Amino acid sequence: MEFQNLFPVWEQLSPKQQSRILGSVTLRRMEKGSLIHSGSGECAGLLLLKSGQLRAYILSEEGREVTIYRLFERDMCLFTASCILRSIQFDVSVEAEKDTEFWLIPAEVYKALMSESAPVANYTNELMASRFSDVMWLIEQIMWKSLDRRVASFLLEESALEESSELRVTHERIANHLGSHREVITRMLRYFQNEGMVQLSRGKILLVDRDALEKLQEGRTE
Amino acid sequence: MEFQNLFPVWEQLSPKQQSRILGSVTLRRMEKGSLIHSGSGECAGLLLLKSGQLRAYILSEEGREVTIYRLFERDMCLFTASCILRSIQFDVSVEAEKDTEFWLIPAEVYKALMSESAPVANYTNELMASRFSDVMWLIEQIMWKSLDRRVASFLLEESALEESSELRVTHERIANHLGSHREVITRMLRYFQNEGMVQLSRGKILLVDRDALEKLQEGRTE
Repeated sequence: MEFQNLFPVWEQLSPKQQSRILGSVTLRRMEKGSLIHSGSGECAGLLLLKSGQLRAYILSEEGREVTIYRLFERDMCLFTASCILRSIQFDVSVEAEKDTEFWLIPAEVYKALMSESAPVANYTNELMASRFSDVMWLIEQIMWKSLDRRVASFLLEESALEESSELRVTHERIANHLGSHREVITRMLRYFQNEGMVQLSRGKILLVDRDALEKLQEGRTE
Repeated sequence: MEFQNLFPVWEQLSPKQQSRILGSVTLRRMEKGSLIHSGSGECAGLLLLKSGQLRAYILSEEGREVTIYRLFERDMCLFTASCILRSIQFDVSVEAEKDTEFWLIPAEVYKALMSESAPVANYTNELMASRFSDVMWLIEQIMWKSLDRRVASFLLEESALEESSELRVTHERIANHLGSHREVITRMLRYFQNEGMVQLSRGKILLVDRDALEKLQEGRTE
């Protein structure tokens, strides 16, 4: 995979813009566990993931963490370059959860591109809206909490009924069971998958970590 | 104040774009207390506030509320037109907290403008980044700050908005702002009263010891 194949609006850039960005990006490798961005002030640039997995989180003054979203192959990380938008007034930290390769796009190069190119600016809008949606989902989880427990309960119940850890059930069906929406359930199951509790494949849900699901169901924390 | 004076990137639009947007906006008036946008699906358009005050909030399935941000004169509300960005996957409700006048910009007009104009797209980016910052602040409040500090913050903020030490606000309403229950807020306010920070009477809260509330808000102890 080359940078050109991963950068989302590549075809809508002029040849001059393409060569400007290609001439400035650098490919970096970070080992699992390393801190890539530590919040406050820094403005290294945007990250475009070639492979691996990153976690973005916030930190309290006392050092408590909460994950706000994760990034996978092809995802772009905006908040490691918060200086490109003056209205970004918060800090996120980013660490590698797996060995990760990414291109670093210098903040000033992206900022210049964004200011002259409507496609780049609109792509950035979609990117931010997508992270915004993650964060709003997180707020709802934190505030109302109940749905994650209800989904965990449903999965454990189904598994007991079927006497199997592999459930053949659509997200639509779970939504219908719980009086929710398919999209909401899909999002929740992806979250469960990210946490290593289930594994999703076409039409199937594999329960991987039953203990974690039971803890979640009962509202226990570690 | 005319639309032209309030719309942020007016000078960067072409005469054709200016007349297209001017020909499509409508000025609306909403009374204090009215619901302007009720979440799910609707995509009326963007609001540009001429005067008044709006509150954007989310609702739990059980009907509990939490305020995510407020909008004042000159502010623009993006999430009443969430269809302009496909990555916006959450619903906010918006109500008038005071008698409010705003221009309604049809979603499809704004969307077309944004897709061709880098200045409009970049302004939209700043707008979203600004709301994003509000929401990140809220997450930090919910995650790390105890309820007493949040109630103290709310009282001080209201007092600043109303330019008065006497607040006409029900306990129910404070609960809706903070995602809590009326009973919990009543108990907290009685505790504040016992500590000499406020004085409660029917439908009113008088801020008596502002210093103590500020100390509490900042988490300082004597």
